[in-house]
Amino acid sequence: MNQKQNKQSGGKAAKTAITPTRAEDYPQWYQQVVRAADMAEPSDVRGCMVIKPWGYALWENVQRVLDGMFKATGHRNAYFPLFIPKSYLEKEAEHVEGFAKECAVVTHHRLEDDGQGGLKPAGELEEPLVVRPTSEMIIGATYAKWVQSYRDLPILINQWANVVRWEMRTRLFLRTAEFLWQEGHTVHATEAEAREETAKMHEVYARFAEDYMAMPVIKGAKPEHERFPGAVETYSIEAMMQDRKALQAGTSHFLGQNFARAQDIEYLGEDNQRHHAWTTSWGVSTRLIGGLIMTHSDDDGLVLPPLLAPAHVVILPILPKGKPAEPVLSWCEQLAEELRGVRFGDRNVEVELDTRDLRGGEKTWQWVKRGVPIRLEVGERDIAEDSVFMARRDLGVKDKHAVKRSEFVATVGVILQEIQDALLGRAKAFREENSRVIDDLEAFKAFFTPENAENPEIHGGFVKAHWDGTTETAERVQKELGVTIRCLPEDGEEPGSCIITGRPSAGRVVWAKAY
Amino acid sequence: MNQKQNKQSGGKAAKTAITPTRAEDYPQWYQQVVRAADMAEPSDVRGCMVIKPWGYALWENVQRVLDGMFKATGHRNAYFPLFIPKSYLEKEAEHVEGFAKECAVVTHHRLEDDGQGGLKPAGELEEPLVVRPTSEMIIGATYAKWVQSYRDLPILINQWANVVRWEMRTRLFLRTAEFLWQEGHTVHATEAEAREETAKMHEVYARFAEDYMAMPVIKGAKPEHERFPGAVETYSIEAMMQDRKALQAGTSHFLGQNFARAQDIEYLGEDNQRHHAWTTSWGVSTRLIGGLIMTHSDDDGLVLPPLLAPAHVVILPILPKGKPAEPVLSWCEQLAEELRGVRFGDRNVEVELDTRDLRGGEKTWQWVKRGVPIRLEVGERDIAEDSVFMARRDLGVKDKHAVKRSEFVATVGVILQEIQDALLGRAKAFREENSRVIDDLEAFKAFFTPENAENPEIHGGFVKAHWDGTTETAERVQKELGVTIRCLPEDGEEPGSCIITGRPSAGRVVWAKAY
Ligand SMILES: [Zn+2]
Ligand SMILES: [Zn+2]
Repeated sequence: MNQKQNKQSGGKAAKTAITPTRAEDYPQWYQQVVRAADMAEPSDVRGCMVIKPWGYALWENVQRVLDGMFKATGHRNAYFPLFIPKSYLEKEAEHVEGFAKECAVVTHHRLEDDGQGGLKPAGELEEPLVVRPTSEMIIGATYAKWVQSYRDLPILINQWANVVRWEMRTRLFLRTAEFLWQEGHTVHATEAEAREETAKMHEVYARFAEDYMAMPVIKGAKPEHERFPGAVETYSIEAMMQDRKALQAGTSHFLGQNFARAQDIEYLGEDNQRHHAWTTSWGVSTRLIGGLIMTHSDDDGLVLPPLLAPAHVVILPILPKGKPAEPVLSWCEQLAEELRGVRFGDRNVEVELDTRDLRGGEKTWQWVKRGVPIRLEVGERDIAEDSVFMARRDLGVKDKHAVKRSEFVATVGVILQEIQDALLGRAKAFREENSRVIDDLEAFKAFFTPENAENPEIHGGFVKAHWDGTTETAERVQKELGVTIRCLPEDGEEPGSCIITGRPSAGRVVWAKAY
Repeated sequence: MNQKQNKQSGGKAAKTAITPTRAEDYPQWYQQVVRAADMAEPSDVRGCMVIKPWGYALWENVQRVLDGMFKATGHRNAYFPLFIPKSYLEKEAEHVEGFAKECAVVTHHRLEDDGQGGLKPAGELEEPLVVRPTSEMIIGATYAKWVQSYRDLPILINQWANVVRWEMRTRLFLRTAEFLWQEGHTVHATEAEAREETAKMHEVYARFAEDYMAMPVIKGAKPEHERFPGAVETYSIEAMMQDRKALQAGTSHFLGQNFARAQDIEYLGEDNQRHHAWTTSWGVSTRLIGGLIMTHSDDDGLVLPPLLAPAHVVILPILPKGKPAEPVLSWCEQLAEELRGVRFGDRNVEVELDTRDLRGGEKTWQWVKRGVPIRLEVGERDIAEDSVFMARRDLGVKDKHAVKRSEFVATVGVILQEIQDALLGRAKAFREENSRVIDDLEAFKAFFTPENAENPEIHGGFVKAHWDGTTETAERVQKELGVTIRCLPEDGEEPGSCIITGRPSAGRVVWAKAY
């Protein structure tokens, strides 16, 4: 694979490291970027992925930053059981309707000899258990025991965990049966406090997406029919991918008293009366990694925002033929050490020094495809001039410049921030280019209709248009055009008339095709 | 509970915050310490625990330090599927024999209406899946695809994950159906390299236990009948709890080529021949938390080694009656901020400022039970003298001293290190006191026999005695006295004759009752 791609990219036949390109076949391009960057792969277990070290290191950075933001807003982590008893799911009809359909059900607690050289399930459980698809039910049951008085509130807890939702059609990071996520679950004495919490975490997600992932998002409320099952309000952040589809990248739910009622989360107030509490939940998952890839990557592979990149700089020594490698290697090692002492973002600069015995072109292309923000080539000539040959991943692959070593060390943080800003700027510009305010149904249809129906080109984008507020109208559009309401944006209030039915509309909503 | 205990500890009837004491009923004492320190609780899901924020924060510190040690020894993290297909377990008889017996089996992927207002499993899977009890099988199958040539080796990967082993009799942290752990899985080209890796991680665990947990351990190899199923050698670290029983706190397995053969992990060598690779695995779990609790805690509750404590210092403001609280609170806040700027171990000093409206005694006892290394009481009089009233958790509860504020800030790191060292010293002394070299069978029996058989007092300890090397002899001792061979210690070589059978022995082994 590497060799073939390398030939392609080095030779004349193909101009890009990834085949097909985004324009040629976007879904295939995505799979190839994930593979070429060595991020993840499907496993033999239906719908489950293996997250490889390069992909997992990115997730670790996502976790570290988000975890810091959660703690800074007063939350603590805890851990709740993987399994949910079936009876818990029987309690909350609306919620279960949304999750019970496709989940992993544990029915036995033993495997035993089947008498034919194989194993068969044995030890049937009295009550089947479900592998958590989300933990509202199990955490709520625990909170019901913890909450007695208003003095026990608020409860502000987050959990990092794996969850399972049986999926037939899976795509790495974007939709898998098992995935990793965090789920915040909070309990409050008042509606106002719970609403404030929901809004606060919604904002945390938006800040993380923009400030760290360099992925601009639209914040808004979901229409009723797209809410989390059992929620009073669901808020999401919506990002535009390079195929102009929307990705829902994080959600924050105001659950009202619905779960507290189903689970008897009650407290004795200062008024000496019993009250049902108010709860929220909020989560992001490894889906963020899919969003990051689809926001920034290009036809040469992954492009990583420096604030989350597993490595910021890769040093590629060019070893002189027929001469000792040591002087070049030790010069590079010293440079690496010096760079590792420089602060960037919330950690020190991370450096890979690639001393593998591979052809230079092959090595370079591997790191291009892995998306490292800065590549440094260092050969004897560079050392003689006390300089490095630098390439930035956000610029063209051939765009390389000699930089004095000392200058590079002094400015590496600035360059990384420039790359971070450039990625955000580029993604914002892309979204603006592909966003429209539309008041005319024909224009709306045209915008979302591919010119080539058999092999649809990348088309559409985000449209702000009026909607009459009915699920019926939303479903009509979804059925006809495959376009859904992504959210009711925060700044959307503006009376008008629905683009579909002409009925009154309270404001423009964001429409798009979506993942 | 708190109130009751507080009365007990404050009043005359009881002298300790935890009832029963260690001497009265050690297992019950343990459960009460876990509960009083707010670390964890059983859940409604059979055998699964809820790890509460204070317990989870301790686990996060364990994770952070260990993760750093793994990375410093060249390992990277990755993530593999939660589920293992049944057919994988049918491949490796010896290994499965050890794990298939009690595991969670997923047989269906849906719940549907049972027509009686409930839900029933539906969508039967063609092949049942087992929730991982350990990941050798699933990770090995993945490595078989990754490993082609000697250039792909070594593979040095760790996973942080939840695992499930169905357990009927559970105890918080020590034995639960679901638990959290890390599992390292490595692949090497040569036996020597794999053995070196096994030894290296064994040493990492021992260093972590002693340097961070302040828990002295004996390093050694397990006797054959106690090895991990399928392993060629299992090495463990064994710690002595305060009931003088041994706790196996971490294991490192040299798997030889057994798993590589079962899973076809083969590589093309530099010799252009195909070879089976050599593999290792190693793990520690939330069981470490149980070990930490049982090593250091006393009859007043949890005692935390400062290097892993979720908080190092708690400040307890004593608010003046009928006067504004603000001057005291702001003095305490400033002190907290200043302390948070002091470095200790691999992080800054973490401070809790407890401003809750509770009686002073109740607050103090809560923090004693939670094991925070340093408590500071600050009232108007202390502020007037620019000092704090300090108590160390490793000393008596009433042992408090006034210290000048500036002196405390300047020396807090030193004091914390003193506490850390004191805990290790105390635990080492305890182990030495309760360890014997025994060459006489009657003395051996007497050492392990309680004086009161109906209600056994704390007795026994570690014995170094000769053993003839046979499983038969070991099983005889286990049956008769409930004593097992914990390990063949690294420094144990010394010819002699077996204390049981009189047959030749290659060296002394460590015997103990164990968790
Ligand atoms: Zn109720
Ligand atoms: Zn083979």
